[in-house]
Order: sequence, then C-alpha cells, then structure tokens
Amino acid sequence: MTTKVVQKILSNYETDNAGVKANLYRMLMQGKLGGTGKMIILPVDQGLEHGPARSFSVNPDAYDPHYHYQLAIDAGLNAYAAPLGMLEAGADKFAGQIPTILKVNSSNSWGTAANQALTGSVDDALRLGCSAIGFTIYPGSDDVFEMIEEIKELRNEAASVGIATVIWSYPRGGKLPKSGELALDVGAYAAHIAALIGAHIIKVKLPSAHIEQAEAKPCYEGTDWSAQSDRVKHVVQSCFAGRRLVVFSGGAAKGADAVYQDARDIRDGGGNGSIIGRNTFQRPRDEALAMLAKLVNIYKGKE
Amino acid sequence: MTTKVVQKILSNYETDNAGVKANLYRMLMQGKLGGTGKMIILPVDQGLEHGPARSFSVNPDAYDPHYHYQLAIDAGLNAYAAPLGMLEAGADKFAGQIPTILKVNSSNSWGTAANQALTGSVDDALRLGCSAIGFTIYPGSDDVFEMIEEIKELRNEAASVGIATVIWSYPRGGKLPKSGELALDVGAYAAHIAALIGAHIIKVKLPSAHIEQAEAKPCYEGTDWSAQSDRVKHVVQSCFAGRRLVVFSGGAAKGADAVYQDARDIRDGGGNGSIIGRNTFQRPRDEALAMLAKLVNIYKGKE
Amino acid sequence: MTTKVVQKILSNYETDNAGVKANLYRMLMQGKLGGTGKMIILPVDQGLEHGPARSFSVNPDAYDPHYHYQLAIDAGLNAYAAPLGMLEAGADKFAGQIPTILKVNSSNSWGTAANQALTGSVDDALRLGCSAIGFTIYPGSDDVFEMIEEIKELRNEAASVGIATVIWSYPRGGKLPKSGELALDVGAYAAHIAALIGAHIIKVKLPSAHIEQAEAKPCYEGTDWSAQSDRVKHVVQSCFAGRRLVVFSGGAAKGADAVYQDARDIRDGGGNGSIIGRNTFQRPRDEALAMLAKLVNIYKGKE
Amino acid sequence: MTTKVVQKILSNYETDNAGVKANLYRMLMQGKLGGTGKMIILPVDQGLEHGPARSFSVNPDAYDPHYHYQLAIDAGLNAYAAPLGMLEAGADKFAGQIPTILKVNSSNSWGTAANQALTGSVDDALRLGCSAIGFTIYPGSDDVFEMIEEIKELRNEAASVGIATVIWSYPRGGKLPKSGELALDVGAYAAHIAALIGAHIIKVKLPSAHIEQAEAKPCYEGTDWSAQSDRVKHVVQSCFAGRRLVVFSGGAAKGADAVYQDARDIRDGGGNGSIIGRNTFQRPRDEALAMLAKLVNIYKGKE
Amino acid sequence: MTTKVVQKILSNYETDNAGVKANLYRMLMQGKLGGTGKMIILPVDQGLEHGPARSFSVNPDAYDPHYHYQLAIDAGLNAYAAPLGMLEAGADKFAGQIPTILKVNSSNSWGTAANQALTGSVDDALRLGCSAIGFTIYPGSDDVFEMIEEIKELRNEAASVGIATVIWSYPRGGKLPKSGELALDVGAYAAHIAALIGAHIIKVKLPSAHIEQAEAKPCYEGTDWSAQSDRVKHVVQSCFAGRRLVVFSGGAAKGADAVYQDARDIRDGGGNGSIIGRNTFQRPRDEALAMLAKLVNIYKGKE
Repeated sequence: MTTKVVQKILSNYETDNAGVKANLYRMLMQGKLGGTGKMIILPVDQGLEHGPARSFSVNPDAYDPHYHYQLAIDAGLNAYAAPLGMLEAGADKFAGQIPTILKVNSSNSWGTAANQALTGSVDDALRLGCSAIGFTIYPGSDDVFEMIEEIKELRNEAASVGIATVIWSYPRGGKLPKSGELALDVGAYAAHIAALIGAHIIKVKLPSAHIEQAEAKPCYEGTDWSAQSDRVKHVVQSCFAGRRLVVFSGGAAKGADAVYQDARDIRDGGGNGSIIGRNTFQRPRDEALAMLAKLVNIYKGKE
Repeated sequence: MTTKVVQKILSNYETDNAGVKANLYRMLMQGKLGGTGKMIILPVDQGLEHGPARSFSVNPDAYDPHYHYQLAIDAGLNAYAAPLGMLEAGADKFAGQIPTILKVNSSNSWGTAANQALTGSVDDALRLGCSAIGFTIYPGSDDVFEMIEEIKELRNEAASVGIATVIWSYPRGGKLPKSGELALDVGAYAAHIAALIGAHIIKVKLPSAHIEQAEAKPCYEGTDWSAQSDRVKHVVQSCFAGRRLVVFSGGAAKGADAVYQDARDIRDGGGNGSIIGRNTFQRPRDEALAMLAKLVNIYKGKE
Repeated sequence: MTTKVVQKILSNYETDNAGVKANLYRMLMQGKLGGTGKMIILPVDQGLEHGPARSFSVNPDAYDPHYHYQLAIDAGLNAYAAPLGMLEAGADKFAGQIPTILKVNSSNSWGTAANQALTGSVDDALRLGCSAIGFTIYPGSDDVFEMIEEIKELRNEAASVGIATVIWSYPRGGKLPKSGELALDVGAYAAHIAALIGAHIIKVKLPSAHIEQAEAKPCYEGTDWSAQSDRVKHVVQSCFAGRRLVVFSGGAAKGADAVYQDARDIRDGGGNGSIIGRNTFQRPRDEALAMLAKLVNIYKGKE
Repeated sequence: MTTKVVQKILSNYETDNAGVKANLYRMLMQGKLGGTGKMIILPVDQGLEHGPARSFSVNPDAYDPHYHYQLAIDAGLNAYAAPLGMLEAGADKFAGQIPTILKVNSSNSWGTAANQALTGSVDDALRLGCSAIGFTIYPGSDDVFEMIEEIKELRNEAASVGIATVIWSYPRGGKLPKSGELALDVGAYAAHIAALIGAHIIKVKLPSAHIEQAEAKPCYEGTDWSAQSDRVKHVVQSCFAGRRLVVFSGGAAKGADAVYQDARDIRDGGGNGSIIGRNTFQRPRDEALAMLAKLVNIYKGKE
Repeated sequence: MTTKVVQKILSNYETDNAGVKANLYRMLMQGKLGGTGKMIILPVDQGLEHGPARSFSVNPDAYDPHYHYQLAIDAGLNAYAAPLGMLEAGADKFAGQIPTILKVNSSNSWGTAANQALTGSVDDALRLGCSAIGFTIYPGSDDVFEMIEEIKELRNEAASVGIATVIWSYPRGGKLPKSGELALDVGAYAAHIAALIGAHIIKVKLPSAHIEQAEAKPCYEGTDWSAQSDRVKHVVQSCFAGRRLVVFSGGAAKGADAVYQDARDIRDGGGNGSIIGRNTFQRPRDEALAMLAKLVNIYKGKE
C-alpha cells in the first residue's frame, strides 16, 4: 500500500533506524494526503505561547483539548502537534487515530529571553504514543548554542527509541533585527541549521524576498526572488538538496485566499506541506474543515 | 462508596496512572466534602514565606506543627499542605488521618529574585506518605522557564510513583507590573500554563476584572466581567474546559463575610474549592472551626 | 542509662530514622552534660573563615589540630565541630572519644559573595566517623535559594546513612542591612527556616531586641523584649514550639562574665546550649577548661 | 604495506591505545598520500558557520551532501570532515570508502559569544563509523576554559572507544585583538595548547610574521620570520617538537597559485598537510580535482 | 630501607589510606633526597601558562617532552609535574623511572578570569601511572569557592584510588591587590586553606615580610619577620603545625645564588623542599644539573 514517493523520501534518511522511519512513514501515509509525500499538520501550541483567550475565545469549543484531536482526524490530516497537557487530555480517547507530535519546548508571553522552557520529554512522547517530538530553536538568539545543544541531545534520545524529530527553526533575537526574521537568506540558513543538527522534518516560515545579511547579498544578487515558489525552492535546496522533509507555517490568521496561495507556492516550490493552526482552529469547525479539504486538493494538484 | 461526580472528575485524567488517580480520589473523598467534587485544603507555608511571628504570633498555639494537622482533621478538610519541616514534625503521629501535600518549593522574605528554593523532593513525599507535591511557578518572572522545567521534571517523577501534583500558579516578576498580577487575562493564562505543563490540581488566586495585556483586551471586550463567579468560570474554562481541578486561594486574612462570598463565587463559577490558610490558622481555633464548617456548607450548596 | 529528658527530645524527631536518632542520642549523652538535654559544642572553623594567625597566634598550641580534640575531650563537651582538614588530622587518634561534626561548607576572607564553598561531604563524614554534618546558610543572601537547596540535598543524603544535620543559620547579605543581622525577628525567622528545611540541630546567634522588618514590627509591639532570656524563648518557640534542638553561638572573644550570662539566658529561655569556639581556644588551656567547667555548671543549674 | 614514516608517527603516540592508533593509521594510509605521512583533509562545515548560500550557491551541486563524499573519494584524500547532518546524509551510501571526522561543535553567524554549540557526540561518531571527532577551541575567548574542558572530556570519551581527536585551535575573542589572531606567537601557542590538552591531530591557520604578545617579543627577536616555511617549522616545534600531527587550513577561497605555495611551505616546514574546504568545493568539480591532484604532487615532493 | 623521618611524616596522614601513603612514600624515597623528608620537584606547566616560545625558546631542546623526564631522572629529583599532554608524550618510555604528578588544571595567557580549566582527571592520572594530581586554587579570586569545590571532589576521587593530591595555593584576584599576593599573612592563610581542604602536599610561594590584611596586622605586630626562614616557619606552622608537607616555588628565573639562598631558608624554616621549574629547564642542561646537585646538598645540610 506504500507509494514510490514515500519510499524515495524514506531512502533519504539513510542512517536512521527502522523505528524513526516507521514513524515518518506513519505520518506520510496518514489521512487524505497519505502516500503523496505531502503533509498537513495541525499545531495547537497557541495557548501556551499567547494565552487561552487570545487562542480560543473566538471559537470557545476549542478550549477543550478533545476538539483539536477530532478536528485533525475529521479533516484527514497527517498529524497533530501540541504541548504536553493538550496531548495528555486526549491521548487515551484518541489513541492511534492520528499520529501526534509532542512539542517538547515552549515559550510564553512572560518569557523575557529569546528562549523556551522544556515542557515535555522523550519519555512523555513514548507513554503518549507520539510519532515525533517537536522543538523550537531561535537562530539569532543569544541562547542559540544552548538551544541547539538541547535539541541535539533530545533528538538522539528520541531516535534511540524510534521517535522522529521535527525542528521549528525560527530566526529571532540577539543581533538579528525584527525586519530580518523573514528574510530569504535568514530563512534558508535557519532551515539548513535544522538539517545539520539532525531534524527529520524541518518547519520554517515562508520567507520574504528581503536579503538581510550583508555577506550573503552577493550570493542572491542577479536572481529574481519575487515568486514565492522560487523562495520555497531555495529553502528546499538548503535542506540537503531536498533530502529532508520541509513544511511551512501559515503564521497569523488571515484570509482564506492567502492561505490557499501559500499552499500552491509551497507545492510548486517542492515543499512538503503546511503546518496550519490558527487559520483553522480559530475558524468555526465547518469553515475549518472546508478550508482543510481545499488545501488537501491543492497539495494533490487538483486546485 | 464512590460518587458519580468523583468518577467523572477522575475520568478526565485519562492518561494518568492508577496511583495518581488513587491519590486524587483520596483527597476528593476525604472529610466533610468527600464525594462532592469540592475541596477545602489547609496550606501552612506562611512561616517560610513571611517568618514565624507574622504567621503565628496572633495565635501562638500555631507555632506547633501538630496544631495544623489537628485543625485540618477536626475541620474535616480534604488535605493539608506544608513544607518539609512542618510535615516531618507530625507525619508520624497523624499518619493516614489526613491526605498531605508536600510543598516542595518555597520563597522567603529574603529572596531577591522572583523564584523559589527547592525544599522538598518526591522521595520526601513518599517517605512522609503524602498524596501530592505542591510547587509554585511565577509566570512573569525572568526565571519562569527554569521554574517550569523544574516542576515538569518533578511532576513526572512524582507521577511515576503515583503521587499527584498541585501547581500554585502566581503571576509575578519580570515585565508584569504589580497592578497586573490579579488581572483576569493574566490569571486565566497562569491557570492554562499550569494545565499545559501537567498539573493535576491547579491553584490560582481569585482574579479581578482588570485586563492587563494589550493583545488580550480585544478577546475580553464586550463581555461583562463584574461578577466574580463569571471570572471563576473563565478560569475553569481555561483549564481544559473544566477537565482539571481548580482551587482558589483566599489571600491575606480578611473578614469572614468576604471569605464566605468568595466561596460562593467559586462554587457558582464551577471551581473546585478553596485553599485557605491565614484566614483559618490566624483565628482562634474555635472561630476557625466555625468558619470552616460554614465553608463546607457553602460548597455543599446549603448556604 | 538514658534519661527522660533525652527520650522526650528524641520523640520530637518522629519521622527520623533510628540512625539519626542514635547520633543525636550520642551527642546528648556525651560528656559532663550527658543526659541533661543541654549541650556545649566546640567549633573550630575560624582558621578557614579568618586565617590561621587571627585564629591561633594568641595561643599557638592551637595551630595543632590535636589540641582541639583534646580540649573538647578534657572539658567533657558534647561534640567537636570542624572542617575537613582539621578532623582528618586527628580523627584516627581520637576515634570514638568525642562525637564530631563535619562542617561541610565554609567561607573565607576572600569570598566576594555571601555564600560558602562545599569543603566536605557525607562520605567524608562517614569515613571520619562523624555524628553530624554542619552547614551554614545565609538568609538574606542573593544566594539563599541555592544554599537552601544544597543543604536540603545534603541533609537527605546524610539522614539516609544515619548522620544528623546541624544548620548554622546566619542572616547576611542581599537586602538585609548589617544592622539587622542580629535583630530578634530576623534571628527567629532564620531559626524557623532552618527548622523547616530539616535541621536536626539549629545554631543561631543570640539576638538583640531590635526588630528589623517593617512588616514584622506589629507582631512584636506591646511586648518587652529587653530580657535576653525572653528573646531566646521566642527563638525556641520559632523552632516548632521547642520540637527542635537549638544552640546559640558565643560570637567574638569577650569577657568571661558576659559568656556566663549568655549561658544563663540560654538556659532560662529554654535553649539547648552553646557552641563556643573563640572564647575557649583563644584562651590558655587552663583558663578555657575552667570556663567550660563553669558553663557546665550553669547549664546544670548550679550557678 | 605500512611505511616507516607512518610507523614513526604512530610511535610518538606512545600512551594511546591501539584503537586510536588504528584510526590514525587509517587516515595516514588512505588515498593518494597514503603512507607518506602527509594528509589532505576535506572539511565542509561552512554551511553551518556561514549559511548555505554563502557556501554552496557558487557551485550548487554542493548543496547535496553526497557531492562532498564523492569529491573526497575521487580526489584520493585522506579524510572528510563535516558536522552531523552532512555525515548522516551520506554515511550509509559511502560507508568505509573514506575515513570521516565528525565535527562535534560548530559556530554559526548568529552566535553572539566566541564559543560554539555541541552538535555531535562520540556516540554519533561511533554509529556513523567515523575515525575521529573534530572540535574547535578559541584561545583568547572568555569561554576558553569551558571549551578546553568540553574537549578534554570528549577526547577521553572518544579515545576510550578508539576514536582519534582533531582540535581546530583558532585564537579569537576576549582580550585578543583581531589583528593578533594570525600572529606567529599566538598561532604557535594555540597549537601548543591543543597538544597539551591531548589532540591527536592539530589544526591551525598558517601564521603571519607578526608577533602579538609583548611578553613574547623578546623570544622572537633576532630571528628572521619572513619565510612561511620557517613559521610552519616553529609551529611544528611547538607541538612537542614534532611528536604530534599538525595540519594547516587554507582559509578563504583564493587563487590557485597561493594555495600551491602554502602547501609547499607546509611541506618544507615539516607540517603534515592541509585541511582545504572552500578552495575546493567552491570551484567546479573538475577544477577542484585538478587542484587536489596538484597538491598531492606537491606533498609528494614532485612539484 | 625506610627512614624514621619519612615514617614520622607518613604518621601525620593518619586518616589517609595505604594507597595514598604509598604514593607519598614513593615520592619521599625517590632520588638523591630519598629518605631525608626533603623534596625537589620539577614542574613544567609553563608552556600552557605562558606559551611555548616564552618557556622553551631559550633552551630549544626543552620543546621535547622527553627532555624534562630525562632531566628529572638524571638530577635525581623526587617527582616530575606537568599537564596532560606533556606526560602522555613520555609516560610510556619513562614508565616507573620517576614519580609523576599530573597537573589537572591550568590557566593560560588568554584566560580572562582568575580561574583555570580542568585539563586532566583522576582517570588520566591512573592510566599514566602518576603518584599524585596537582591543582591550583586562587584564594582571593571571585571563583575561589568554585575552585575549592572542584579540588575537593577531585581529591576525594584521587584518594579513593590511592593517588595523593598536591595543591598549588596562589593568592590572586578579587579584592586582593597585586601588592598583597606575596604578603606573609596572605601566604600563610593560603597554605592553611590548602591544608583544610585536604591537600597532602601544599605548594606556596615564598612570602615577603609584608602584612596585607588590616585585621591580621595585630597578630603579626611585635615580631621581627625580616628573616625568610622565620616566614617559612610560620607557613609550616599554618599547615597544621607541620603535620602536612609544604614545598615552595622558586618563581621566575633568577640568579643561582638567590635560588640557593631560598633553599637554605626553606630548609632552616622547616619547609619540605622546592618546586623548581624555569630556574632549571631554562638553563642549559649541564648548568641545570649542577644547580640541582647543589640544591640537593643544601637540603642535605651540606652547604
């Protein structure tokens, strides 16, 4: 029942053990995009990052952790990612119905450093039946070395028990100006770092056409970066010439058309899919399901 | 002898092991509120936080650790919470008579950072026969990441031996102004963080109607938050739509009527009860017993 | 051969194991005050704290570690406390002749923080045959949380092998002014903290009648604190209403009459005795023995 | 098939175990320079240090990790050095074809301290079949003590499983001005530190004739340091009079003639070879192979 | 073949195990001073502290680690002390011919704190066949507590496998002015600290007659400290009244006569000998051997 495209993807993880590959396989074969090599993942870590009211008051059903499991299952997504408490509150009821990703570190509105707190562990991921752990690094932060060392150790521990690692690589902090966080060179570099430190799946933001680093400018000059799909292509290239899965985040809630266009650009640039949270769970359930159905079609090349 | 309401509460802890559930059960079934799903807990950590004279000179019998065990037992409370030394000095004499919660971290008047010292361990809780550990986090503090990581590890260690975890989530420090510590958005966020990092019982302060965070204001506008019971309801909602036990602290010693009104609001808002210390042990024993008897009646819906 | 008063004291350590109780018993039954519930302990950590010349040049025989063992034995004291090197240099020759307390942390004149270095361990205490470890905390210091966590761990480790813990609780540093270090409220608080974190024997300085903390003043107003014995009584009360042994330090070398009066006040206030160092080893041996003999008589109520 | 020169080199590692010697042997016997005691190593850590575009956009084939394995193999080099992700993405396909060095720490353009993050471990080196680990220290950095302690522990762990250690010793940071980073005294000192802390292979930059340290000037005065080969000789002397392997890095991409002259000077000064990255992988593959072939001839004394 | 003086020295280490005593014995019985209770030790850590050229360019043979082993053996010294790399490069060839001391921490010219890096371990000392480890503390440094804790742990680890500990106690840093580093009170205090934290052999600098600490001045007034031998006597007294071995360092290279006079003063003051590095290995080998022969004679009381 497996597909060639999925087998090709797995073959790129040549030094990973069968346990990790099985979990990558599980996520790649799940749901409506199963077998296509494309993925849509539902992440719900907004409550920890921004507080409950800012996350859920617009759609109060979403205060209940069961809501998100059910949404991801009903929409036929590939995986559901959330911090410890959110998964614990539903992992028994929905056991096995959808691959889960335990987000093991998290920031919050009170953090005064560009860093995060560890809020989950590989042991938690195992006992909750997760397929992967998720971890955010902030390239640019004064604490970037420490964050890299943390995920490096966690990734090895996870891999040793067959759990895959997803790295959220979000440039932020230190000597990097706010204006440069979405720059193309910065985003490609962030993706490359994630690949180099061992991410199985890399999650980055869709980059703009801005080039931030003076030393990097000559490498980008003379090429037209105005098409978002070209920028996606460069990020994919920066992940070992496409040997690693790369998914892109949707950012803050926005108009549906913009969400669809992003997905088309990710698809056309060779990206592996979307991680899309606020744009779904902050909409009424019916609207969210409709949007996700359309995104599935886009990734299948039907729209 | 168990009750439906207690079984319903336990069913929300779907991924917790039988040991943790047994200790939650023990606390929920103890004393005069046993089986109602409501709790009154006696906490005596004031001596460490504020010094002995400020805590006990008004009622000198309370210098003796045995006093508090006996008060909690005679009043028919659900549990007694205190730091290491207080429990050690009575745990043998009162073994089994009342569930105890070992407060494993504590501040003191001399601390110069918004943080606390670890003064107890899971091993201590085990040898003293405790049902739970208690831990304070200060969302807002510069050290909030560190505090979260500490309790995250302790909670898992405790759960692995069947001990439940109570998190005191008290916004304080860092970029949070004093005026915002009791704000509704801040308190709901603090409760949500506690739930997300794995608290079995969440302890917060009763919030005011003030909204502190600029980004959160739009989510609260258009709703009337003047009723304390509505604010309690929002906090309960922020704890996984009521899937986690939430108790509220009484704060500094105050008039008896205010104490009773707080309890009615907690009850009406769907909260699970009170943690009430200074308002009891700083009153003469007879007065304290009378007050606690009345609070029991309030939680039973009789007053 | 045991006495009721000693049995009563031991019964207060209700959750401690037999090993710890045996070592408390050993110290309480040793020497001329054996069985009375009172103790005199010889501490010699001045060399590390102030340097050798300031400690011993006035009585050069005291440069030799053997001198202090012999003094404590000949004076019939309850125990001898010193840092690692001092004990190692005599522990074999005097093995078993006097209970010893290994002071496991120490400051020195060069330390630039209100903290101390760990210079001994529980394993050291075991191999040197010690009855207890001694540890200083500085309530008030910026490092007070760290110091509390250190002794908390060491105390548990020590107790697990039957060794008792003596905590020197000396307010110092941080936001506490020099003028407040000896205040009554501060000293009672320091003693209470030591009790709460698990000290078996609490060592504090004799407090003055000054009240330092604004918030604590109302608790002390209306009482006459001019009698030193009343202040001792308040400190004893702050140690779990007398459930923990409390000894008082003599401070810098001073006139013999002042030393005797201190002992009478400690006795009359219900304290358990003196830790007296410089006032003995900085006097010629004969004078020191005479002074200690008289102190024994005072604690026996004969003078 | 071994050679006298290689046996002589191995004999200088008199206290190392057979496992470490076997891996040094493997690198010394590999490729076109096998048996000569000279080495050329391909390092590809530029992606992590400078970002993907600055490293590979000039030769886009080099985005693919397989490219570098193949280049090192086809050029007949002694070893290939890279960070974790780069090796993992090819270690299975090229297993055994070329000795590999896992670079276990790395900086990046975002680091704000003169330090690096640990991105690999000895266990990684073992499972990837590496012959050595590589580690950078920054003599001069405020963190130099910490970096030394890190590699000291890793080196012992590596040696205990028969893996050799290569130390990149690059003066930088702290009180060392930029102008002094390439000074002869500074470079010789950096090489000496690497030798003293246990490097099996020392990697330094080719030093200039500048002398940086005032205290060191008298030691260099009266000697003519204008010949680069003499400077190499002094560095070799500083590595235990030649008892340790020393290789020199080529620095930024530059003209081919300069690269050749450097190699001749290294050879004539008694150095053991080159680590050459950007000067090869940033050229088209054919040019790179031609350059490496010529470098081999230089080290063989044919050019 | 043992001597009474050596047996007397060993008897002062009354709580040390036979393994440690055997290694002290080995050093005390080695070479031309074997059995006299006096020692001359060759330390070669200058390369790490000051760089290779400043250490060895004046006598280039000394770049080779074998040179120093041979010098210590040929001169009939008691022991040879050096950092890891220096010992590893000769420990096999000279195995057993001379007791060695592994210097396990070291500073370097680039360190910006008054601290050192750990560059060796007890396991290293064991595998290299060393009799002792050496460790420097800086009384006065802001990091003095940390350094004390490091050596305290290492000393116990070493002792547990029968290896002795030599502490270099060098006042430096923090609130101690440069002018006070050699003061008599400061040096005696430094020696006393080393004794108290468990040094088997104490290494200090020869003190001047200056008294640095205001509080210590009264203890030194009224005594004539102009004779260096009297100052040595005070340091010896400060090391448990002579119960610990004390050796003195020679400092920077200087005239031979000054070196000889220092030795006579050490001998006459009851010190146990010299650690002498730069004054020997920075002279031509023949001169160094002649100087060492004369020093042996001085310690034997023949000159």
